[in-house]
Amino acid sequence: MKPLPLSDVYALIEAGPVVLLTTARKGRANVMTMSWHMMVEFEPPMIACICSGANYSYDALHATGECVIALPARKLAAKVVKVGNSSGREIDKFAAFGLTPLPAERVKPPLIKECFANLECKVIDRRLENRYNMFILEVLQAWVDPAQKNPKTIHHHGYGKFVVDGPTIRLKSRMR
Amino acid sequence: MKPLPLSDVYALIEAGPVVLLTTARKGRANVMTMSWHMMVEFEPPMIACICSGANYSYDALHATGECVIALPARKLAAKVVKVGNSSGREIDKFAAFGLTPLPAERVKPPLIKECFANLECKVIDRRLENRYNMFILEVLQAWVDPAQKNPKTIHHHGYGKFVVDGPTIRLKSRMR
Repeated sequence: MKPLPLSDVYALIEAGPVVLLTTARKGRANVMTMSWHMMVEFEPPMIACICSGANYSYDALHATGECVIALPARKLAAKVVKVGNSSGREIDKFAAFGLTPLPAERVKPPLIKECFANLECKVIDRRLENRYNMFILEVLQAWVDPAQKNPKTIHHHGYGKFVVDGPTIRLKSRMR
Repeated sequence: MKPLPLSDVYALIEAGPVVLLTTARKGRANVMTMSWHMMVEFEPPMIACICSGANYSYDALHATGECVIALPARKLAAKVVKVGNSSGREIDKFAAFGLTPLPAERVKPPLIKECFANLECKVIDRRLENRYNMFILEVLQAWVDPAQKNPKTIHHHGYGKFVVDGPTIRLKSRMR
């Protein structure tokens, strides 16, 4: 993994890909699938996300205030669904689905080797946690895998229907 | 426009498309381009969004607490960029860019006829407005244009680079 400038993080997230979120608690790592997230600020990059209280990951995120957001490309779609349909209460999802945890630099939750980008995050605002299970995260460190060129992300439309990235178009724009 | 069940709204938003946001203030409608939004709740559907204070639309959303989120398909990409690169302080964007405002049912801001879906929204939580320009919206009424079949949305990667929806894949999943 190669460091990604923090100023480039927004372009990964604002397009709305399905992501994986890792946590670690009491020495045990876990991973969930997530689609409810958005950018909040460019720099330092801040991301809001919703993590349902029904998720085992919620307890870890609540208790530790740390996570990694990992971006899977299309080839990981089947694993992404398996991660979403199982619980860390019952299994070690990394072992069960062949995902490789790598040590992060600034937080305890692991990066995921098979993902093309990994964002190390800490919770910085919990004001909407009780009402909506919303966390505001600051991205402390970002990584990309230079071996994965032009990865195509997947976007969830409900119940296992995913739309894969198609063609890129470029229009003259001042919009960052 | 045909009503869309509110329970189906999340599938439009969680995939992260670029959207248009309309507002109305003192009898004048405006429209901006937005990519920083996410689902917060399935039913009633709630959406969080970030609307920069530099936007003319921010003043209207702040003052009225009402907006419409309109979803443009790929064919509107050039107009979406023009909307994003201009300000309602200076021009009437509907007239300038050939977008047709239609009356909404529950709110004052207009629907956009050329968009394949329109969500009438009111602000229900402003606790994070001061710090992040974040609004929590409840969707009161949703509409789709039955004439636009399988619309392809666009996703922003920064500075006018957009990825258009590609192939759909279906995997067995319990994840709503």
